[in-house]
Amino acid sequence: MSTTGTHHGNETRIVADPDLPTILIIREFDAPPDRVFRAYTDPDLVVQWLGPRRLTMRIDQYDARSGGSYRYVHRGDDGTEYGFHGVFHEVRPNERIVQTFTYEGFPDGVSLETAVFEDLGGRTLVTGKSLMDSIEARDSMLKSGMDHGVREGHERLDELLGGQQGDGVDRDTETGS
Amino acid sequence: MSTTGTHHGNETRIVADPDLPTILIIREFDAPPDRVFRAYTDPDLVVQWLGPRRLTMRIDQYDARSGGSYRYVHRGDDGTEYGFHGVFHEVRPNERIVQTFTYEGFPDGVSLETAVFEDLGGRTLVTGKSLMDSIEARDSMLKSGMDHGVREGHERLDELLGGQQGDGVDRDTETGS
Repeated sequence: MSTTGTHHGNETRIVADPDLPTILIIREFDAPPDRVFRAYTDPDLVVQWLGPRRLTMRIDQYDARSGGSYRYVHRGDDGTEYGFHGVFHEVRPNERIVQTFTYEGFPDGVSLETAVFEDLGGRTLVTGKSLMDSIEARDSMLKSGMDHGVREGHERLDELLGGQQGDGVDRDTETGS
Repeated sequence: MSTTGTHHGNETRIVADPDLPTILIIREFDAPPDRVFRAYTDPDLVVQWLGPRRLTMRIDQYDARSGGSYRYVHRGDDGTEYGFHGVFHEVRPNERIVQTFTYEGFPDGVSLETAVFEDLGGRTLVTGKSLMDSIEARDSMLKSGMDHGVREGHERLDELLGGQQGDGVDRDTETGS
């Protein structure tokens, strides 16, 4: 009932822990957990929002289940490609995703990414955590401009979730194969 | 040339970083990287050394390639079972293994494990790193008695690598499928 209408104040918070090599990414969305979770796991939806607007996303593989793998490429107007890949340690429907993440420009760098979905009564709180193996690696990630891409991606996800009727995002039903 | 004979002083060093939620596990073995790497990735060999002597190991799955998964169970004399599972983010032959790790008694706990194999001229230095998301989780891991199991496992691996003739550990040849 309270999921319709625009909730003002959706804002992405990006927090670098002072003592741990982590980045917290905290965001609320105007949709219940099952719809937000599906937007994070169905590649036909992921490709519509993940990353900044100026890059085109191509998904080579996105098998979002425990033990699955993924790879995708973001491509700029000048043809530059940025590849990313990893494995899904756990995909717990509507609750939790744990995956590894490597930017292929730095193939020895690996982070462990956890996203937790919490039901706020029709709205969803998503808390993401990126864990790296040094404060320096974490600070490099922050300085890469990832914050802009994350925020803009979340705005695009708002738009995707808001366009319920025609965008293929089902409510409360599972139609995926 | 220098790989034969017993090298005294193989000792497992387990180091808790004072500032980061990591455990370093450092060990040399009297065998070249390809043989040590194979003992870490071939389930028929892994089952012979991983963990303390008092537990029996059963491997349900051990697909040690990039994107593969694993699960194994350690079982005590009293029938108590300890399950572990995860995914392999990267398996780079004779060089590097990056995998996730969960003890199923604490299913929300996930660590990121990296093992790097370095050639010391016939001997191999293996540097393992476990990365957790808090100092408390890291300290709990240390207090679990894991250090005893790790050290005893390494002694069993010494024995496996030392018995070259009859244990199925090939030298410098690949016979696996």
